[in-house]
Amino acid sequence: MNEAAITLDGWYVLHDFRSMDWTSWKALPAEKRKAATDEFIAFLDKLQKADDEKTGSHAFYTVVGQKADFMLMTLRPTMDELQQLEAEFNKLAIADYTIPAYSYVSVVELSNYLAKDSDEDPYQNPYVRGRLYPELPRSQYVCFYPMDKKREGEDNWYMLDMDRRRELMRSHGLIGRSYAGKVKQIISGSVGFDDYEWGVTLFSDDVLQFKKLVYEMRFDEVSARYGVFGSFFVGTILQGSDRVSFFNVQ
Amino acid sequence: MNEAAITLDGWYVLHDFRSMDWTSWKALPAEKRKAATDEFIAFLDKLQKADDEKTGSHAFYTVVGQKADFMLMTLRPTMDELQQLEAEFNKLAIADYTIPAYSYVSVVELSNYLAKDSDEDPYQNPYVRGRLYPELPRSQYVCFYPMDKKREGEDNWYMLDMDRRRELMRSHGLIGRSYAGKVKQIISGSVGFDDYEWGVTLFSDDVLQFKKLVYEMRFDEVSARYGVFGSFFVGTILQGSDRVSFFNVQ
Amino acid sequence: MNEAAITLDGWYVLHDFRSMDWTSWKALPAEKRKAATDEFIAFLDKLQKADDEKTGSHAFYTVVGQKADFMLMTLRPTMDELQQLEAEFNKLAIADYTIPAYSYVSVVELSNYLAKDSDEDPYQNPYVRGRLYPELPRSQYVCFYPMDKKREGEDNWYMLDMDRRRELMRSHGLIGRSYAGKVKQIISGSVGFDDYEWGVTLFSDDVLQFKKLVYEMRFDEVSARYGVFGSFFVGTILQGSDRVSFFNVQ
Amino acid sequence: MNEAAITLDGWYVLHDFRSMDWTSWKALPAEKRKAATDEFIAFLDKLQKADDEKTGSHAFYTVVGQKADFMLMTLRPTMDELQQLEAEFNKLAIADYTIPAYSYVSVVELSNYLAKDSDEDPYQNPYVRGRLYPELPRSQYVCFYPMDKKREGEDNWYMLDMDRRRELMRSHGLIGRSYAGKVKQIISGSVGFDDYEWGVTLFSDDVLQFKKLVYEMRFDEVSARYGVFGSFFVGTILQGSDRVSFFNVQ
Amino acid sequence: MNEAAITLDGWYVLHDFRSMDWTSWKALPAEKRKAATDEFIAFLDKLQKADDEKTGSHAFYTVVGQKADFMLMTLRPTMDELQQLEAEFNKLAIADYTIPAYSYVSVVELSNYLAKDSDEDPYQNPYVRGRLYPELPRSQYVCFYPMDKKREGEDNWYMLDMDRRRELMRSHGLIGRSYAGKVKQIISGSVGFDDYEWGVTLFSDDVLQFKKLVYEMRFDEVSARYGVFGSFFVGTILQGSDRVSFFNVQ
Repeated sequence: MNEAAITLDGWYVLHDFRSMDWTSWKALPAEKRKAATDEFIAFLDKLQKADDEKTGSHAFYTVVGQKADFMLMTLRPTMDELQQLEAEFNKLAIADYTIPAYSYVSVVELSNYLAKDSDEDPYQNPYVRGRLYPELPRSQYVCFYPMDKKREGEDNWYMLDMDRRRELMRSHGLIGRSYAGKVKQIISGSVGFDDYEWGVTLFSDDVLQFKKLVYEMRFDEVSARYGVFGSFFVGTILQGSDRVSFFNVQ
Repeated sequence: MNEAAITLDGWYVLHDFRSMDWTSWKALPAEKRKAATDEFIAFLDKLQKADDEKTGSHAFYTVVGQKADFMLMTLRPTMDELQQLEAEFNKLAIADYTIPAYSYVSVVELSNYLAKDSDEDPYQNPYVRGRLYPELPRSQYVCFYPMDKKREGEDNWYMLDMDRRRELMRSHGLIGRSYAGKVKQIISGSVGFDDYEWGVTLFSDDVLQFKKLVYEMRFDEVSARYGVFGSFFVGTILQGSDRVSFFNVQ
Repeated sequence: MNEAAITLDGWYVLHDFRSMDWTSWKALPAEKRKAATDEFIAFLDKLQKADDEKTGSHAFYTVVGQKADFMLMTLRPTMDELQQLEAEFNKLAIADYTIPAYSYVSVVELSNYLAKDSDEDPYQNPYVRGRLYPELPRSQYVCFYPMDKKREGEDNWYMLDMDRRRELMRSHGLIGRSYAGKVKQIISGSVGFDDYEWGVTLFSDDVLQFKKLVYEMRFDEVSARYGVFGSFFVGTILQGSDRVSFFNVQ
Repeated sequence: MNEAAITLDGWYVLHDFRSMDWTSWKALPAEKRKAATDEFIAFLDKLQKADDEKTGSHAFYTVVGQKADFMLMTLRPTMDELQQLEAEFNKLAIADYTIPAYSYVSVVELSNYLAKDSDEDPYQNPYVRGRLYPELPRSQYVCFYPMDKKREGEDNWYMLDMDRRRELMRSHGLIGRSYAGKVKQIISGSVGFDDYEWGVTLFSDDVLQFKKLVYEMRFDEVSARYGVFGSFFVGTILQGSDRVSFFNVQ
Repeated sequence: MNEAAITLDGWYVLHDFRSMDWTSWKALPAEKRKAATDEFIAFLDKLQKADDEKTGSHAFYTVVGQKADFMLMTLRPTMDELQQLEAEFNKLAIADYTIPAYSYVSVVELSNYLAKDSDEDPYQNPYVRGRLYPELPRSQYVCFYPMDKKREGEDNWYMLDMDRRRELMRSHGLIGRSYAGKVKQIISGSVGFDDYEWGVTLFSDDVLQFKKLVYEMRFDEVSARYGVFGSFFVGTILQGSDRVSFFNVQ
């Protein structure tokens, strides 16, 4: 039997993409729209409180193009809390004017491919904890995509032995690290939770870095031979008063 | 002709995933919402009675993310009873506020890959009966996914001879057994009934075990070379008063 | 050029799968629902008359799970009659409360792979006629699925020579014949008519036989290497007063 | 660089498949339905006028099964005219009671695989002109499907050299020609215009010939190894008073 | 690690395809339709102003067939401006009568495969700037399609070394250049932004050139072995008073 990769697992993650039903939203009387917006902003502020108290994290972005109008990404210590936040959102007035567009369920993950041997409990290591329970940045841009490792004929990641996978991941990781300071990357595992094996969320203040990073990686064997990619979503941050003006239609 | 696997078959299974139409549900007058909820709870209580009398079993869970809002899984001795329960659900008032999201038709199955030779009628064996006519647990989390065995080029499960398949399944089964006590697994066959060949339903009080189990298996040749997976659904249990509060919108 | 299979072709077949829009159906006043049901039953009785007169045949079944609520399968000597029956159904009042779910257009087919050489006109052979113009049974269960023969790399059915195809089909046919008396099988060809190459409709009084038959065949080279399968639909018969109670919502 | 096939290109073609929204159509007051039908018949008569004047051609057929209710196929000298006819249709009253089901944009095409060398300008050849600017027949049945030539591994049509392609097409063309008088075939190219590379439209007074032709071709290497097929649509002609009765619901 | 291609990146691009909801648009009172049309024309005129000032560019075309009714393509220096234009469009009255059909997010791109070595900063080169920040032509026809480079078995573009890719792209570029003066081609990269790796937008006054160009390229190894194509959209220009008459329904 082939040696499986071992993972460290942190906060659970829900990416929730919604399209606005602008037509019915515009048809709503202005005061009801205002009440619904206020209620939603209060919900977002409550999410921010969890960020401040480091009991979770969230990100709120537009999505450019027709795939969705906005993405709300929430991180929490348990799957139950994600379910409750999703239920809470669905019961907000504004939810009635949104159309589900896509969602992704995963858990922040670090793999042992790049780990150093150590006697230490990695869950006590502050650096590891900072990556497993991340404070999402307030970068100007976000990029999300789900992905698999391929299992087709000669190109079968899961039939490679651990040493070969570790070697390939090392070279792959070098590309990622060369973008340090330009792109923050959150890898979350979704085997058993959603349709792909991982979700990748990138944050940057320079949207072009998403393209440069993903394109450079595509020439690396890990992506070139073994990468299978789902849909890509890209968007701009919604914070402060932009959250109100985004929903304002008159 | 290649030797086919032989199966033991137990209760028929319907997984019924539904999304709530929250907008129209909220628009319903409170007393009508209450009546519809009460009627649905009474339906669920009737299902529980079959569990208690061991004439069937059921499970009722939320689904995290947009794939559905809840999953109702029912097991019964005949396909006809599944059809009748489905029809009964559709005629409940609450059904008018649900949107079909996904369903899966199968029958609980044990294969002969791991069976011991015996003169005994397996259908009289209490251990076998416990697995074919299972009492679904009330674990905190559920995971469901359908799957096929691959038939592509060199990776064709159905062209392997019985000995090779038995050997591969033995190693695969070892992984499953190492999760005993942590994950309860129901395998149901759906060849001739639905679009994949099997449905897999996992129950656990630790949602992370779903990911660990499925990911570890992916490195095993049965999954690595021969596994084809459909959508994954994960959710949290709905029981007692949570069933009411889940549908409560004011 | 490779030798093509020759077919005998019988009645044209339309499989028409519909979901009920239960919400709007329930909203209809009871007397209108009754009138619509009565009109539909009269339509079904008219179809039965064609069965009785052997000028066609039909089958009417529920579908278990969300793929559809019912399937109406009609066989007629011409494509035009199928079109007219479909138009007639669409103009019934009950059609307004149905949602198209799936359909399949084909013609009952016998291939020459298993045929004996003969000087006789097969279309005059009573046994052949019985299979080309079949009286559909009133079995308790139905199973339908469309399928193709694969054309991928080394697994290309249409590049095999006639002798090899005949040999493979002979072994495949043996499995089918071993289910004689348990499963009645209608093969209809749809090349040029619909998206797969064949439709397979199975009838049985023991729903488990569908799974046993299809699973056993999957280990046979014809399916293992060359079978490509579409969606599977399974259901229970609707006849007599069950036809009324199925649509009754009060 | 591989030698590309050269094409002769004739009239532009739009296949427009629509489903009727029978529910809302029936809900329309009878006199409005009549007015909408009359207006549509007048539109069809105007199309017929272009056929009569040989400034274009059209075909109007039902579609059997749920893929669509009818197909309107129009041929014109320019893409702009197709766009205008489509816009004109959308502005008819009856269009409000139709649901877009599928469409295909292409241009009638002859390839040089079968061409004889000649100094003559083929666009002046009356036989070639008759094929590039065809008068669509009023056959009882129509069949439409889009297709590609495969580009997968060893089965890559576009990597074959011109001589091999010409040889294969010659054998393929022989099958087509053996159906002369039984099936009229219009090939239209859609590279750069729509999602497949060609559309194939067949006309016949014997619907079974569609199945025989397409099935026989499937055993020929051009289809067996290199054919990739989209959806198949089959239907019956709508002309004269049938055009009115098709839409008549009371 | 394989050498990655380097790109020059220009303006960000949003292709926004919309279908008209003609039924509800016709149901709108004429004066409201006129107001909505006027407001939209003013929005288009504002876009034209950016073209005139060379601070961006746009194109507005019909789409032939059911994939969409029109395409609005906008180019801007930042992703944020694209998001704002999209939001602005959604808040127009006419947007309530449109249905999202498809969209594509990318950035105008030049690759280094064909670049000459030079000490010069290419972003200062007027020829390069003209291609990165293009003034979209007012040609009669447009064609858009997204595409990938294949990564399957032996046909894996990203595993080819840089010299081989450069050689292949040179031959491919020759075809493109032979259409100079007939077809204007905008390549935009979408790795990390959307589901394919590139978007290709073609402009021409002769719609047949789209077919000739794409078909000729298909025989070239870059497309034949490595091209993966998404949907193709083709349409006619909407400018001046045609913009009003396109939306005029009375």
